[in-house]
Amino acid sequence: MEENKQEIIDEKDEAQNEESEQMVVEETDELEQLRQEKEEINNRLLRLQADYDNFRRRTQKEKEADRKYRSQSLVEELIPALDNFERALQVEVDGDAAKNFADGMKMVYDQFKAALEKEGVEEIPAKGEEFDPHMHQAIMQVEDENYESNIVVEELQKGYRLKDRVIRPSMVKVNQ
Amino acid sequence: MEENKQEIIDEKDEAQNEESEQMVVEETDELEQLRQEKEEINNRLLRLQADYDNFRRRTQKEKEADRKYRSQSLVEELIPALDNFERALQVEVDGDAAKNFADGMKMVYDQFKAALEKEGVEEIPAKGEEFDPHMHQAIMQVEDENYESNIVVEELQKGYRLKDRVIRPSMVKVNQ
Repeated sequence: MEENKQEIIDEKDEAQNEESEQMVVEETDELEQLRQEKEEINNRLLRLQADYDNFRRRTQKEKEADRKYRSQSLVEELIPALDNFERALQVEVDGDAAKNFADGMKMVYDQFKAALEKEGVEEIPAKGEEFDPHMHQAIMQVEDENYESNIVVEELQKGYRLKDRVIRPSMVKVNQ
Repeated sequence: MEENKQEIIDEKDEAQNEESEQMVVEETDELEQLRQEKEEINNRLLRLQADYDNFRRRTQKEKEADRKYRSQSLVEELIPALDNFERALQVEVDGDAAKNFADGMKMVYDQFKAALEKEGVEEIPAKGEEFDPHMHQAIMQVEDENYESNIVVEELQKGYRLKDRVIRPSMVKVNQ
């Protein structure tokens, strides 16, 4: 009888174990899948966060550059007018009235220059400076023993920069 | 004996059922927790995506506005110089040389104006226009039967706008 009883119990056990194992296997599959999905979403979240951070940084830099050189297009338009202003002021005038007129115009010119300087526009130093191909455009080469080699001996047209950006290089004569 | 056997089986069953239930309950708890975590991360992902999209849209708009009005600060600096230029040009000069000089200056003035116009700077129409408090600053009120009511009869100082933005309103006399 003992033997018989044991046998019955074993049979019953086996069936129940199988059923229970089946359930555990199914649940484990689902757990595994969920874990993978969660990890995948988490990775997307991390990538998106990194993208967003990069975009924000890049945007900030672009904004600063845009702000720094914001006047560039107007400055480019104004430089030829400034050239003509300087040329016109070089004409000699006679008589007190004409001289007063010319003085008034010189003041207007200075005011324009000051407004441009306030926005970061400045003349590129040329005469007496060492030739710098980033800022100077060599139109002629000369031999002048009063200057050292590779020195700008004359400026033919003024150059301008806006902050650290060359808007127009100076046209110069350079000593060989 | 049958009764006895059944009893033994029942006892065994009960113990195994409890064990199995315990396992299922644990797995189910973990599943539930994982589902919640996954949903939470997914919600964070969706919120971040929406934030990112908004940020991109806002940045684009700001960039366009920055570009549109980029010349504003330089324009603001230049307007007083332009006022003085106009005042200086109004002085009458005698003699051919002085007249040539003045003509040259008028050309320089026109060139400055053209450069500013190219960047979107324009004079605000005033005389003969209906008074507009967004563009005109009324300095005086007059009674002039040659004009209709609320019409600008004289401009005392030019006003300027940059595209659709008023940089400086015109100073005007308005008819009551």
